[in-house]
Amino acid sequence: MLRLKSVKIDTYPDNVAFLARHCEACRPEEFLALRKIDVIAGDKRIQASLLIVDDENMVGLKELGLSEQAFRRLGLAEGAKVSIAPSRQPRSLEHLRSKIHGAALNREQITMIINDIVNHRYSEKEIAAFLVSSAGFMTTDEMLALTEAMANVGHRLTWGEPNIVDKHCVGGVPGNRTSMIVVPIVAAHGLIIPKTSSRAITSSAGTADTMEVLSRVDLTVEEMQDVVKRCNGCIVWGGHVGLSPVDDILISVERPLSINTREQMVASIMSKKMSAGSTHLLIDIPVGRYAKVSSLDSAMRLRKLFEFVGDKVGVHVEVTVTDGSQPIGQGIGPVLEARDVMAVLACQPNAPLDLREKSLQIAGALLETDPDLRGGSGYDRAKELLDSGDALSSMERIIKYQGKVDTPYTLGTLTKDVLAPRRGTVSAIDCFRISRLARLAGAPFEKGAGIDLFKKIGDTVASGEPLYRIYANFQSDYAFASEFAAKDNGYHLE
Amino acid sequence: MLRLKSVKIDTYPDNVAFLARHCEACRPEEFLALRKIDVIAGDKRIQASLLIVDDENMVGLKELGLSEQAFRRLGLAEGAKVSIAPSRQPRSLEHLRSKIHGAALNREQITMIINDIVNHRYSEKEIAAFLVSSAGFMTTDEMLALTEAMANVGHRLTWGEPNIVDKHCVGGVPGNRTSMIVVPIVAAHGLIIPKTSSRAITSSAGTADTMEVLSRVDLTVEEMQDVVKRCNGCIVWGGHVGLSPVDDILISVERPLSINTREQMVASIMSKKMSAGSTHLLIDIPVGRYAKVSSLDSAMRLRKLFEFVGDKVGVHVEVTVTDGSQPIGQGIGPVLEARDVMAVLACQPNAPLDLREKSLQIAGALLETDPDLRGGSGYDRAKELLDSGDALSSMERIIKYQGKVDTPYTLGTLTKDVLAPRRGTVSAIDCFRISRLARLAGAPFEKGAGIDLFKKIGDTVASGEPLYRIYANFQSDYAFASEFAAKDNGYHLE
Repeated sequence: MLRLKSVKIDTYPDNVAFLARHCEACRPEEFLALRKIDVIAGDKRIQASLLIVDDENMVGLKELGLSEQAFRRLGLAEGAKVSIAPSRQPRSLEHLRSKIHGAALNREQITMIINDIVNHRYSEKEIAAFLVSSAGFMTTDEMLALTEAMANVGHRLTWGEPNIVDKHCVGGVPGNRTSMIVVPIVAAHGLIIPKTSSRAITSSAGTADTMEVLSRVDLTVEEMQDVVKRCNGCIVWGGHVGLSPVDDILISVERPLSINTREQMVASIMSKKMSAGSTHLLIDIPVGRYAKVSSLDSAMRLRKLFEFVGDKVGVHVEVTVTDGSQPIGQGIGPVLEARDVMAVLACQPNAPLDLREKSLQIAGALLETDPDLRGGSGYDRAKELLDSGDALSSMERIIKYQGKVDTPYTLGTLTKDVLAPRRGTVSAIDCFRISRLARLAGAPFEKGAGIDLFKKIGDTVASGEPLYRIYANFQSDYAFASEFAAKDNGYHLE
Repeated sequence: MLRLKSVKIDTYPDNVAFLARHCEACRPEEFLALRKIDVIAGDKRIQASLLIVDDENMVGLKELGLSEQAFRRLGLAEGAKVSIAPSRQPRSLEHLRSKIHGAALNREQITMIINDIVNHRYSEKEIAAFLVSSAGFMTTDEMLALTEAMANVGHRLTWGEPNIVDKHCVGGVPGNRTSMIVVPIVAAHGLIIPKTSSRAITSSAGTADTMEVLSRVDLTVEEMQDVVKRCNGCIVWGGHVGLSPVDDILISVERPLSINTREQMVASIMSKKMSAGSTHLLIDIPVGRYAKVSSLDSAMRLRKLFEFVGDKVGVHVEVTVTDGSQPIGQGIGPVLEARDVMAVLACQPNAPLDLREKSLQIAGALLETDPDLRGGSGYDRAKELLDSGDALSSMERIIKYQGKVDTPYTLGTLTKDVLAPRRGTVSAIDCFRISRLARLAGAPFEKGAGIDLFKKIGDTVASGEPLYRIYANFQSDYAFASEFAAKDNGYHLE
């Protein structure tokens, strides 16, 4: 018997147990080969990866330490008596091994794996093994089974309406904040659009980061449902409502490995939308040399997969392939992007036209799903709602009910204009580089950091004319970003 | 700048860095997506996986913690000033990604990956990704490149002799301690046989565990070379001499995932033997229903792979397929196995005949590689060396120079005889179950724990006659083992 101790290390998504090397109640070396143990207290049992500790202040000779989430999951107080045993490997590991050695799995096997992952019975290594073996090959049947298994764990929202619309962009284009314009337009029309968005992971801002400049985004499911009831729509952070807990776990392992297959992308997005209760979904696939999808051919194959899964799971999916050759709007970074969004909603004369136009196209397509609207009139209706100020009111209402930010964020105080080295016409803008530059300047963690673009593709510039302005809050960020821009400013001139 | 702190957690094979969640010198959340950072001090730079700590006693707001091996690798004192940066991903990760997505890699790409792994630039997840994607498929060219890349890192021993012999058993048969008889015979003849062995990982004893009953086995490379110079041979633990550091890392990840492909097995064994400087290698593949290799067809395919790689890398490989239908010898567990080995070497009348005969066959085959010996006389020469007592003297000399154990280990004091439930003839013995039973009884951690077999296949037993005896040192081990044997004793009677 060992005494339970909480070790305050965040090891998400892994459950980790800590034993003293010279533990007096067991032989840690016995468990080291498989590096996984079961921790047992009465009828509670959790699986955990094992680490050995050589510091008795951290874990004593009669103690068992558990990392933060493992401790929470076991749900006992410090000092509770626990015992350990060789891990009862979850049965689905057999299927994982088949998959590793080249088998295609059936629906039941995939469901078992997903259930074990969401119940934290897989170590990070085992999750990586599942993702890597699936990236090697995955049949469309496997992808479909994966999507459904993922959608079946965690919350599944219902809205009591036949028509729940949603949109999703596969990403890769900086400044592409159409959701923050589409949601208020569609909500103003009266359709239900409960939008969950992500935070930036490696990019300079996600919709959730930018929305956070205006309102709270870390709503609970109940708060989110309340906002939608009052406003027809919302723009919240998906990570907090936990609609797809297994997707959050898979992404946390997938991302560091840079695994990015079409099949896993489709399963991830579609399962999340199923959990959100969406019935009509518009997928935006920007295509461009520097976007996530770089060819029309790839976009087409991705479109087919979305359509296949949508048809099978009963979600009406429409896919639109858009121009991903350059950033959308002018600002890159939360405060700058929020400025662009509000300018479009307020119909200000200086509002970025490309952001306005793309948002109208998407909102129009979503409005077409309203049976009461005459076919082909979606775009005009979207324009009407935007130009009349109804969309702006809708947005203000959403901001109010999500919880308006008290003190507005301000732009970074350190600025630098990056100048054209010669005259010419802008022929290309490197989205990767621009996004990286905004991140170096501090975005999204510093809301006011980022880049304001003065020139887009097709614009002519004089030698020495500013291409864009860098905003930063800290001297070190400012220096990193300036240096990075000096090396290659990301603009191609002809 | 952060102050370096040592966090005494053993995270092998991963380098792990710890930051306080509210670190005052950086934004930990910035690094969380990729969960990997570079730790920099002057011209030293190591890669480490990042964990967040919520206990300022463990890691303070201005500190950076490093796990034991990461701290050693950086090689600075606590309190040293370090900085951190987003990880400069090793270039070989690109190739890993290609492999994950189905590509076959060339020699240069595999070499880059192996070099990055051995230099601790890969996280455990990334190592798992390499192993899993390789298990999916691996061409023979990839396998060959992997073998050579693995052999080229770490020590490579040279012996100043043209003929260095070695043997290796792919495993799965309890009690199979032929090495401890073959080495002294071959060494007594005058051939050089620098044998490194493994410890049990999931089985009840490895050769190193059993040899440790008689002498030290954790010799350094220099000590090992000295013993071989004096005795022509040695029997040491391979894990300590570190001949194949990358193999140790790969196995530590492979094992918990139960990845076990022919290609990875061949690369692992052949690279280790190349590092040991072997020129002539005998591979023992036991085949049996309960052995690691269960069919002659599998054994044949494995044999071909060994021969292919051997020919390409210039090691003369001979493969022998042996009977793996039941344990070899009588004892299972370190003390019991050492007893059998010494009984064979001392030519005691009660020595297990199967262990003697198999050892003579293997030793005979190795002696055939001596150009001074007449073809076909290897077996007779081996028998002569064993029966004359020369092999025993050779073993005593090896024990002496490796460092004889002062106080002999004794057998477990708790014993239980497992009885035949009815009369009959033994038709099969389940090696998995017998090995697991010995492990439950405490082997290999308790040297005196294990099982002593009284009956083998073909023996007749009366009802109530003992099949084997369990030895244990602790009441809990004794109870676990007795219960396990009561459920199914592993013997099949006809």
